[in-house]
Parts: sequence; C-alpha cells; structure tokens
Amino acid sequence: MKYAFIGTWRMSFESIKENINLLKKPDPKGNAIVNAISYIEDFPYYKSVGYGGLPNEECDVELDAGFMNGNTFQVGAIAGVKNVKNPIKLARELSYSKFNSFLVGKGAEEYAKKNGFEIKDMLSERAIQHYELKIKKLKENPQLSPYDGHDTVGMVSLDVANNMFAATSTSGLFMKKPGRVGDSPIAGSGFYCVSSIGGATATGLGEDILKGCLSFQVVEKLKNGISVKDAPQQVVKEFNDLLNLKLGYCGAISIVALDKDGNWGVGTNCEFSFVVGNQNEDVEIYIAKPNSELTSLQIEKPSKEWLENYDKKRRGTIE
Amino acid sequence: MKYAFIGTWRMSFESIKENINLLKKPDPKGNAIVNAISYIEDFPYYKSVGYGGLPNEECDVELDAGFMNGNTFQVGAIAGVKNVKNPIKLARELSYSKFNSFLVGKGAEEYAKKNGFEIKDMLSERAIQHYELKIKKLKENPQLSPYDGHDTVGMVSLDVANNMFAATSTSGLFMKKPGRVGDSPIAGSGFYCVSSIGGATATGLGEDILKGCLSFQVVEKLKNGISVKDAPQQVVKEFNDLLNLKLGYCGAISIVALDKDGNWGVGTNCEFSFVVGNQNEDVEIYIAKPNSELTSLQIEKPSKEWLENYDKKRRGTIE
Repeated sequence: MKYAFIGTWRMSFESIKENINLLKKPDPKGNAIVNAISYIEDFPYYKSVGYGGLPNEECDVELDAGFMNGNTFQVGAIAGVKNVKNPIKLARELSYSKFNSFLVGKGAEEYAKKNGFEIKDMLSERAIQHYELKIKKLKENPQLSPYDGHDTVGMVSLDVANNMFAATSTSGLFMKKPGRVGDSPIAGSGFYCVSSIGGATATGLGEDILKGCLSFQVVEKLKNGISVKDAPQQVVKEFNDLLNLKLGYCGAISIVALDKDGNWGVGTNCEFSFVVGNQNEDVEIYIAKPNSELTSLQIEKPSKEWLENYDKKRRGTIE
Repeated sequence: MKYAFIGTWRMSFESIKENINLLKKPDPKGNAIVNAISYIEDFPYYKSVGYGGLPNEECDVELDAGFMNGNTFQVGAIAGVKNVKNPIKLARELSYSKFNSFLVGKGAEEYAKKNGFEIKDMLSERAIQHYELKIKKLKENPQLSPYDGHDTVGMVSLDVANNMFAATSTSGLFMKKPGRVGDSPIAGSGFYCVSSIGGATATGLGEDILKGCLSFQVVEKLKNGISVKDAPQQVVKEFNDLLNLKLGYCGAISIVALDKDGNWGVGTNCEFSFVVGNQNEDVEIYIAKPNSELTSLQIEKPSKEWLENYDKKRRGTIE
C-alpha cells in the first residue's frame, strides 16, 4: 500500500497530518489535497495564502490557485481573484471544464458567485496592520524593496490507487501591483503532475520560476529515470545557474516532488521548510538547506526554537 | 548571415514580409517581432487578435499576449485585458520587470494607462455583427458549441546576431467566459525561446495546450538534438495521443518553431497555415496537413482559390 503527501513550508503540517488518511483509500477527485489546501486558506495566521493573505499595493487581497489531475491532465486555475473563500475549490471545479478552465479577475469572481462558491472578504485586520506597517517603512526608507512574502502553499498527493494530484494556492507577492500573477496558477511552472510518473510544485519568486517551467522540468527528469531524491535539486541548480548567467540574478526557488511510488524529494536555492509523510514515514516538518554551489542539500528536522519562533512570527506582534 | 521569422496562420504573411528585414541587423529588443505582431493587432479583419478580435460571451473583447527574450529568459505577459491597443507592446514592457511581469485584468489596464500605452475600444462593428449572429444561431440551435475561433498569432524570430524572441497575441476563444485565459500568455505553453537552442509558439485549444507545456517541450527536444523539422510534430503527436488516451479527447494544436540556425519546422493535428522566411527562403505562406496517425506532414503552398477564399471569409459578408 503506497500513499504520500508533500507540501511546501511548515504551514502544510497540520493540514497534511489531518488529511493524509484520506489517501489510504482511493481518492480519485483529489479531496485530500483540496481539503488540505482549503485548511491553510482558512487559517488566518498564514499571511501568504487565502484569508489573512497579504494584500497588493492597493490593499486588496488577490488570490491565485491551480489544480492538476495527474490521471487525466485536467488543469483548473484562477488568478487575480478577490473575495473567494477557497480558491483551490474553484480551481478544481474549473479543471472539469473542456473550455474556460483558467479564469482571472472579475470573470473568475462572477463565476464563483454564480456557481455557489463561498464569497468572503479575504482581507484580515492583521493583514491591514502588516500593510500599514510596510507603507510606513517604505516612507521612512524609499530604498527598501516593497516585495517579500511569496510563500505559496503547493502540495502533491498520491493515494493507494495511484491517483496523483498537484495543487497550489497563494495571495502572491505582498505589495504586488494589482493583477500581478506569478507561477502558482500556471501549469508546468507552479505545479505539474502525471500519475504514471510523479508530480511537483514550486514556491518562490514566481516571475523567475515561470521563466523555466520548473515543475514540468522535475516531472520530465523523473520520466527520464532520475530519482525523485535528485531531480528537484538538479532542476533548481541548473536553472539557478542559467538565470544567474543569462539574466544576472535568480530569485528564491523551492520545489517539492513525489514519484509514483511515494518517494519524495525537494530542491531549493535557499533555506526552505516543507512537510512530508508516506506509507513508511510519519508526517514531519523538515528544513532543507543547500550548500553554496547548490550541489547538495542538508535536510533536518527543525529545532524546538525554530518552531517556536515560526509560530511567534505568525501570531505575535507585527513589527 | 542567418536570420529567420516564422508565424502562425496566413495572417502572419504581410507583417512578417514587412518586418523580416529588421532581422538582417542585430535586433536585441525584439522590434521585428513586436512590430509584426502589432501590425496584426491593428488589422481590423483578423478576428482573433487585437482590434477586431471576437468578444467574450458578454460582448467584451479581452486580450492576452506573451513575450520572451531568448537571451535572458525574461518573460512579460498580460491576460484578460480590455482596451489596450497593442497587447504585445505591453507584454514586452513587462518583460523588463523583475517583479510584476505578468499582469491580468483591470490591473494590467491601469498599468497600461499609467505608463502611456495607447488605449482604444477594441470592439469593432464587424465583431459585434459576428457576436449577434452567433447569439442568433445559438438561440436557434442550443446544441451548437459556442466556441470557435482561437487563431492566436504566435511568432518566433532570429536575427543575424542570434537574438531570438517568441511572442503571442490573441483575443482568445470567441464567446469565452469573461476572464478566460488560454495558453497564449503562458510561458512554456503558448511560447518559449532560448537563443542558444531555438524557440516555439503554439495555437489551438489553449485549455489543452497548457496541459502539456508544449512550446517548452519543443525547445527541450531541440536541446536534446532532435531536428526542428521533426520536433514540433513529435510533440504534437505524442501529446495528442496521450490526451486522447487519458482524457478521451484532444483539441486542435499547432506549433511553429525555429532553431538557432534559422531552420524551421511545424507540428499540427489539423490543417494549419503558417508563414516563414529565412536567409535562404523568401517569406511564403504554407499549409500543413498531417496524416491521420500524425506521423507525417504534407506541407504545400496554398492554391489561388484557398487564398481568395481566406480573404473573402475575413472581409466578406458575415454569415
């Protein structure tokens, strides 16, 4: 019996732990991954996904999500969407459409309203406080980059019947321009999944991830026989080096992946936390740290201090 | 001296002929491809690109465009955008941004206004007539599919200094839902380009093209040593067969490609016209017809009747 669940960032922990049991039965609709991502969308203290997500430069929360069925190649996605409580549910619904499976902006919102998806003001009080503090800091120091906080949740799931799914949800770059879209809703870049091979999903600077179709590249490497332990880091290193050479810089890139047998791997060019569990391993939080050449990764469990600090940063005073 | 220009559909002919000479000098900003696509955007009789493009189900023209610099991997894109005269110019401008390089909907329109891009009502009288006729036909025959007309213009260019670009522009599916986005503005799916290898761009049913990152796949095949004569058709056949197997259908897919030496190739699962010229060949219109297994293509120049009929369909009475 093989099953596995992997997700980006420490924030995936509770939701994967809660939903991994769904993968012990056939889950042909991807309920486990949609439930797990919805859980994070609903959680007010994660400031980069769903409710509580940080707003754009006009203080509007605009959300992106993507969903792929690895059996059928069906993809559904939304981008630049306001007031939809669970973007991932809308993305899955759209994946069933032969036409109009990727909707953006007002059109996606209208679709959500007409089709009974829950509508909600996604801007939390806490997100407003973050916004106001950032505006103040930018006034005090105009040299400061306005952009940070692009911690997309991305997950890949495998159930006992070999149904695989990949999915993402994000509020995107804090202080982004209205309408800005990164890699998250983009099949091939933010996520990709083929049940007979494996799946991958990315987080980081979307503008750079989508230059390289990085999730697709990981699945291609798996297809070509490269182990899931190695494929994501190879992709990150190769593209990181290429962009540095050709463009002169490369933003943060992190990728998590599963193969069809429930083995997992990650790739990253920065310190990156993730969550994984499968038929052999309990659901755990890990931190991956690459060496400076990106040729190897150190993967370890976080210390108690790290975990406490993470929690404090999310729930504590905004500063 | 090597240079080459390839574009989807017969509509690329005049614009490529007019702009191919720009490729005989170094063109590091992609002026040739942006001029050529702008020409088509401005031409009122092409009903799937720019002004005169067919509207969505609410009779709004919503435009998508993408641009990639094959030297730097910079990508700029817009989607679901109204009232911007030349979407491709906006996409190129966004490609220079480190952040916010893909904008959708109202945000993209605001960016265009603020940054001096020409604003124009893109709905032509003729497009309204097409819309009204379609509404009438759908009332008479509710079984009719509302969707047709997804003839994206996509081009790839190579100049004498080996600068390569890929770019697309489209009004998307006629009668689409508001906010619908296909493959055209999506790097890897609608277009992809690496100057040291080659570039490709796709047209057809965007919902299916983006399931497979097909432009990226063509460039990968070139990288792996497969000739540009073969790579696009291999990608189309492989993905067409895969989707038919896994999903039960596959929409229209056509791809044009150039390699870094100015050689060209196309792939398609339906009759498809395209335009190409390079250092050895004058700019010509061709029609590609695949055999039923998609294992080979017949490529020939169109007959006089075909050309006259094409023109009549675009300029003649709407029926």
